[in-house]
Amino acid sequence: MQTRYFTLRDYPQGMPPRELFELHHQELPALDEGEVRIRNTWLSVDPYMRGRMSGVKTYVTPFELNAPLEGAAIGEVVESRHTSFRAGDKVRHMAGWRDVAQLKGDVLEPLPDMDVPDQTFLGVLGMPGMTAWTGLNRIAHLREGDNVLVSAASGAVGSLVVQLAKAKGGTVVGIAGAADKLEWLEQHGIHAVSYKGKDARQLGDALRDACREGFDVYFENVGGDCLEAALDNLKVGARIAVCGLISRYNSDTPDRGPSNLSNLLVQRAHMQGFIVADHWTEYPHFLEEVGPRVARGEIDYEETVEEGLERTPDAFLKLFEGANRGKMLVRL
Amino acid sequence: MQTRYFTLRDYPQGMPPRELFELHHQELPALDEGEVRIRNTWLSVDPYMRGRMSGVKTYVTPFELNAPLEGAAIGEVVESRHTSFRAGDKVRHMAGWRDVAQLKGDVLEPLPDMDVPDQTFLGVLGMPGMTAWTGLNRIAHLREGDNVLVSAASGAVGSLVVQLAKAKGGTVVGIAGAADKLEWLEQHGIHAVSYKGKDARQLGDALRDACREGFDVYFENVGGDCLEAALDNLKVGARIAVCGLISRYNSDTPDRGPSNLSNLLVQRAHMQGFIVADHWTEYPHFLEEVGPRVARGEIDYEETVEEGLERTPDAFLKLFEGANRGKMLVRL
Repeated sequence: MQTRYFTLRDYPQGMPPRELFELHHQELPALDEGEVRIRNTWLSVDPYMRGRMSGVKTYVTPFELNAPLEGAAIGEVVESRHTSFRAGDKVRHMAGWRDVAQLKGDVLEPLPDMDVPDQTFLGVLGMPGMTAWTGLNRIAHLREGDNVLVSAASGAVGSLVVQLAKAKGGTVVGIAGAADKLEWLEQHGIHAVSYKGKDARQLGDALRDACREGFDVYFENVGGDCLEAALDNLKVGARIAVCGLISRYNSDTPDRGPSNLSNLLVQRAHMQGFIVADHWTEYPHFLEEVGPRVARGEIDYEETVEEGLERTPDAFLKLFEGANRGKMLVRL
Repeated sequence: MQTRYFTLRDYPQGMPPRELFELHHQELPALDEGEVRIRNTWLSVDPYMRGRMSGVKTYVTPFELNAPLEGAAIGEVVESRHTSFRAGDKVRHMAGWRDVAQLKGDVLEPLPDMDVPDQTFLGVLGMPGMTAWTGLNRIAHLREGDNVLVSAASGAVGSLVVQLAKAKGGTVVGIAGAADKLEWLEQHGIHAVSYKGKDARQLGDALRDACREGFDVYFENVGGDCLEAALDNLKVGARIAVCGLISRYNSDTPDRGPSNLSNLLVQRAHMQGFIVADHWTEYPHFLEEVGPRVARGEIDYEETVEEGLERTPDAFLKLFEGANRGKMLVRL
């Protein structure tokens, strides 16, 4: 059986050009004892992957050049020499960016038995959902009635953050750009604020109009002007969970940095970066709390789906154009 | 009896000119029931007072123009109509910037009975000392063996921070400017790094040379290049206590902001602003822990003393020239 997979030819500066991604194919060897062969059905592309394309070790190791790229994926076992798996089993693993994966069974997770579509375990019930839950509950210590601000509020993470926050009863404000994203937010009872055509000060003014008394929690996905505008609208004792700074991921110039960090002092605010992998032992807890709500249709999640392995790099690059709503996926 | 006191004529932009401070005198009325008259012996001037000269409410209310300025002071009761105080008692209060204060007895604190000079209750055992202890223990959660970085390390707060941190056994690095300050640090077993003639990157390199493995704790008194250099030298899970940002207090242009806030994310670091007043209920706890060490001579504290009420504004302005070592005081 053949596998087709993507590699990275070089570490990009700035936005990666499409040509850096190369599609290869290879005949797979017969399975060794303990190995499993999986036909992937869904691939995940995520902003954090840009960090792995830098060639610099940050909180994740860089992708190896000219080797199969990696990422979360869901698939069906087609052949197994591992006692815990047999053909037909659905599994989640990290050998994405390819159509057929061959792995030691020990690195596979069986999909949880819940009445939800498979791909939700890459999105609202996968890493992005767990990120939203962890940031709100474990980093920002969300409390009943908190006013919450979220940037990239209609993204894979942000769209769950706003819904989890809304359920706690405070005012929730989401920053987004495109008209359909703003509309989606308003439909869910979120005050939507567009960043378009606004500098940091103007965005700050718009946030003040949306929530006069300021924010207890800011869930940061973007950085740049969003962070600066948020820092001007904190309540005393505010907590900022820094989940991502996507506005900077493809930048090759130094950030200007927010001019108003002194607000951390004035408002005795707390700002903390986090990486969801550090909290993964809590995944069962998250799944128990959020899974049934997804199954009952109480949580609205959106997906942007590209079709076919060949489109994987395009799906990834679209993350940085603001072209996706909710989770960006590739269906094979 | 007359009192002489300073007022502020206008809210300054940038560094306050000396002429903004005006000395007045006034005949004091007879004491009302419950009032106490105090002849001040020591006045405190502190960087936070600059914030009260802005006319903008931040975490402290602005000074009222043309009214007596305020600040911590120590004095001796000369007359009392309050049952808890009598002539000769030593007290601490907030009616500084004057030679004779007349106050309700309820706002006076008797000086603790410890074998230390009176003025230590304005410095190492007063607000600056309590600030050092609170930032290290309650905000940065200092642990045994932590590597600690301190900016303005020979100042009233910093000089205690480095000694408390050093007692916990890790590497302690202090940033300062003048040669005598660097020398003082080295004499106390602190790795001293000069910020002079270095941009943020060069300062970061110097910090790396001083402590290869990076810092668990950064105690921030300065901001600007110090913060940027520190952000490049954090260990995973680092805690930054933001006590002050003195580099910005007299600035009338927007801060550039650190270009590398993304390190908060990479290192899952925690950054928190704090105001010591929020933690004042813990003062007895601090005094119990640090007081005996000061009395036994185990803590070295320095004082820079100006003589005479007339010099109070000059003492205050020197805080921003880096001219003081340790606590800046005025002796009356």
